[in-house]
Amino acid sequence: YYTLNRSELAALLPQRKAEAHKGTQGHLLVVGGSPGMTGAPVLAGLAALRSGAGLVTLGVRDGLTLPEKPMELIVKPWSQLQWDAYDAIVAGPGLSTQPDGQAILATILGLAGPCRLLDADALNLLAPIPRWWEQVKGSLVLTPHPGEMARLCGLTTGEVQANRLGLVKEKSREWGVTLVLKGAATLVGSGEEPIYINTTGNPALATGGTGDVLAGMIGGLLAQGLAPAQAAAVGVYLHGQAGDLAAREIGPAGILAGDLLPRIPRVMEWGQANVDR
Amino acid sequence: YYTLNRSELAALLPQRKAEAHKGTQGHLLVVGGSPGMTGAPVLAGLAALRSGAGLVTLGVRDGLTLPEKPMELIVKPWSQLQWDAYDAIVAGPGLSTQPDGQAILATILGLAGPCRLLDADALNLLAPIPRWWEQVKGSLVLTPHPGEMARLCGLTTGEVQANRLGLVKEKSREWGVTLVLKGAATLVGSGEEPIYINTTGNPALATGGTGDVLAGMIGGLLAQGLAPAQAAAVGVYLHGQAGDLAAREIGPAGILAGDLLPRIPRVMEWGQANVDR
Amino acid sequence: YYTLNRSELAALLPQRKAEAHKGTQGHLLVVGGSPGMTGAPVLAGLAALRSGAGLVTLGVRDGLTLPEKPMELIVKPWSQLQWDAYDAIVAGPGLSTQPDGQAILATILGLAGPCRLLDADALNLLAPIPRWWEQVKGSLVLTPHPGEMARLCGLTTGEVQANRLGLVKEKSREWGVTLVLKGAATLVGSGEEPIYINTTGNPALATGGTGDVLAGMIGGLLAQGLAPAQAAAVGVYLHGQAGDLAAREIGPAGILAGDLLPRIPRVMEWGQANVDR
Amino acid sequence: YYTLNRSELAALLPQRKAEAHKGTQGHLLVVGGSPGMTGAPVLAGLAALRSGAGLVTLGVRDGLTLPEKPMELIVKPWSQLQWDAYDAIVAGPGLSTQPDGQAILATILGLAGPCRLLDADALNLLAPIPRWWEQVKGSLVLTPHPGEMARLCGLTTGEVQANRLGLVKEKSREWGVTLVLKGAATLVGSGEEPIYINTTGNPALATGGTGDVLAGMIGGLLAQGLAPAQAAAVGVYLHGQAGDLAAREIGPAGILAGDLLPRIPRVMEWGQANVDR
Repeated sequence: YYTLNRSELAALLPQRKAEAHKGTQGHLLVVGGSPGMTGAPVLAGLAALRSGAGLVTLGVRDGLTLPEKPMELIVKPWSQLQWDAYDAIVAGPGLSTQPDGQAILATILGLAGPCRLLDADALNLLAPIPRWWEQVKGSLVLTPHPGEMARLCGLTTGEVQANRLGLVKEKSREWGVTLVLKGAATLVGSGEEPIYINTTGNPALATGGTGDVLAGMIGGLLAQGLAPAQAAAVGVYLHGQAGDLAAREIGPAGILAGDLLPRIPRVMEWGQANVDR
Repeated sequence: YYTLNRSELAALLPQRKAEAHKGTQGHLLVVGGSPGMTGAPVLAGLAALRSGAGLVTLGVRDGLTLPEKPMELIVKPWSQLQWDAYDAIVAGPGLSTQPDGQAILATILGLAGPCRLLDADALNLLAPIPRWWEQVKGSLVLTPHPGEMARLCGLTTGEVQANRLGLVKEKSREWGVTLVLKGAATLVGSGEEPIYINTTGNPALATGGTGDVLAGMIGGLLAQGLAPAQAAAVGVYLHGQAGDLAAREIGPAGILAGDLLPRIPRVMEWGQANVDR
Repeated sequence: YYTLNRSELAALLPQRKAEAHKGTQGHLLVVGGSPGMTGAPVLAGLAALRSGAGLVTLGVRDGLTLPEKPMELIVKPWSQLQWDAYDAIVAGPGLSTQPDGQAILATILGLAGPCRLLDADALNLLAPIPRWWEQVKGSLVLTPHPGEMARLCGLTTGEVQANRLGLVKEKSREWGVTLVLKGAATLVGSGEEPIYINTTGNPALATGGTGDVLAGMIGGLLAQGLAPAQAAAVGVYLHGQAGDLAAREIGPAGILAGDLLPRIPRVMEWGQANVDR
Repeated sequence: YYTLNRSELAALLPQRKAEAHKGTQGHLLVVGGSPGMTGAPVLAGLAALRSGAGLVTLGVRDGLTLPEKPMELIVKPWSQLQWDAYDAIVAGPGLSTQPDGQAILATILGLAGPCRLLDADALNLLAPIPRWWEQVKGSLVLTPHPGEMARLCGLTTGEVQANRLGLVKEKSREWGVTLVLKGAATLVGSGEEPIYINTTGNPALATGGTGDVLAGMIGGLLAQGLAPAQAAAVGVYLHGQAGDLAAREIGPAGILAGDLLPRIPRVMEWGQANVDR
């Protein structure tokens, strides 16, 4: 396994060119949201923009309205999406497990082009599909917490927690995906590569929505062209750092997931600053 | 009676474990809201998150929309709620006294599991029920202001104010509840235990919505596992401190209830910091 | 005529008592809003809370929704309002001159209890009513800008500007109202009393919505029990100071009306602080 | 060609008079927005207010609702607009290329009075109209990015980028417009006048919505009476400076378009401050 330090992080972060414009920084699609669960895709979308993605579109159920919609996000109903027009896709935040999500998930799994990240209810919709990994085209990132991992593996949460490192190694290889197993020391596995063990973060992150922010951060890095294993490790590292900054500035408990957002560019700059040293 | 000082507070505050996640920090349900009165449950829900609760769901009348909904709160209509799936329940903020609230209140009173806090219009719906305390299962916290207390006791507000300490002692025992009588020196009584007299707060708190914030703070502490009497005393103490901070930083009048929210983690940290000294 | 200085201001500002609660700080009703013009009553309502009012209800056309509604404001449709239940009323912000406002204006003019402030389109609805001042019961404050004053007087704007002091003196007496004639040196007249000439403010206030903030500030002071002439002079003075603070902190142009809101408690504290010196 | 420095900027910036009120600072109409693309006109409208415009109205499709609507903006449906009642018009942000925009564009092109700026989808609706410049009355500003410029010229984006200076000179003269060709060194051409080359800005601006902010800034300056070529050059210069400030304060990537807004008055003050030196 391996960890990241500041100089290694700097080498992995996307560097903007002088002639960058919103089109060169990647367009992320976030698929999620359901009645009463509209904040999750918004958090993911803003996290992607804060991570440097050039454009973010939220793809939501037809007719769903988002009271929290910020000015910088575009919203499109599923029926009007051109699914292969995006550089990366994050699916799951606030999606719910309503049955109309199953066909959408199948569509997403079948896309050969953009790297896709599945989180939250997209994982819960995925788990019951027999041998789902045989239907997947292209690159896939999964970001389960232990309970979601248990459902994916047909184990109990306790069994997952007792064998975190082994399961990430085994399942990332078997499923052919980049696997992010969240928890106190989040792990990232990608088949043959060594496992990444995260060293940032703190218990203040134990609040609803921080997972949506993580999914958006990794998605934003994928849209900017990072390889899945690198995007996942860098995203997990920076997410923990943003949480460390929030805990230091706000308190060891009581941060909101949205408090992470303005801190993302700050921790990215901290990493990028190292390049020139 | 007793008061709290900083070191006593520190011993009562919830401490996060290294392996905390949103599921271990408690899930609070806030039941409230009505047309035009949508801000009250939102204030309560955000106050609970700011107090360290892991998840907060707002349970609202079917069809009610919340223009103020923040990204971090989940909203569910009453018809889709599984009432016993929460660690604690706050009922009342913005609820109104429309008759459809009566059946909901009866449902909440009958729950044996989660501790419930009744505030505002939930108290006004409760008052006319003859000998309501005989229907209550499990733990209950009531947070009346003097006018609501008067309705609960069949007294005038003047009679309540003239006998605050006596009434809290008598009624908390008779009703079998934790009773928070709000006012310039808020009292907390819990049957046989000594009465808590609060020493924090200031007249800047005399503005609409600060009661909703208090209800959410106590609810957030209940969801994290504090016993009702402790959650009430600690919540009242920290709420007053957040108001003191707001008055010092904003002014002796003209604070908004929402100004308290970002100050809650700061006053909690102030308390927790004392543990290690 | 007279002006205010800091120590005179301090003597006029409301002082909170230790036992203050939201009910003792006054309940203001703001009547306004129309499709696409929803921000104006919200600005007025928030300005009233920032000026120390205990509660603010926005009374709007039945069916009107306010996307900007903040958590601390209550919204009620006209059909459900109990018009005489408020300590003061501000009518006009965003109201439009749609004909359904005429009956509402008549209702408001006929109230004997709460002091009422008419601003913006309420003045435009008032102007065509022949000898409207003979229908008025109780205290009334009018806050026209020169164009609205011209309509009220049957003059041109140029004629109003050429005779500001004379018109305020004459019309406030004839109409039996407190008259606030806005402009570079806003005037306040109240029948027999000397005219107040304002010395605060700057051209950064020349942006949409600052008039709504002024109406809300005066309304908030009325709700707290200030006499109309004093509420108007103090409100105009503090509004200008908040604008001076905003210009110093943001720039000489490009402030938004909402930028004034967090600065209101600061300028009020500045005034109140003087009491003890 | 020419560039701007600080003292030249100061001479071009609008100076507020002591007797300024919202009516003397110009009223801008922003025409745009479509389902799911509501943030773009809001960004443009707020940017205009932050640039000193006195009033901004958003003109949107009948029935379109804007969840992001801020308190300071007025919204009107197209069917209720009096098109010639504004000092300037910005058309395009979030407009979409739905066919109902074509008639609106024709209306706007035919107005002889207010200067109009066309951006984004207004340019995409304009491009297919044969010899559209023969239908234009009065002053027009176009703000294409290279892809939109390519569509307007019938070229590829590569051909545009290879001949930026030449195309701006040629097309601004042929079309009789002020032409802003966006990119790493934005150009402004106006027929016979020398080309302006911008020297401010940085790659952090490569994020969705920054173009809407630029359109609003130029529109706000037009509404205050600046000539089209000057408004365009000053707007481009200040927009880049606001981006430089945001990058310095937030980070070299991950700013949101909305982060520019509070920085506009600061960079304008920086320019205006120079006048007196």
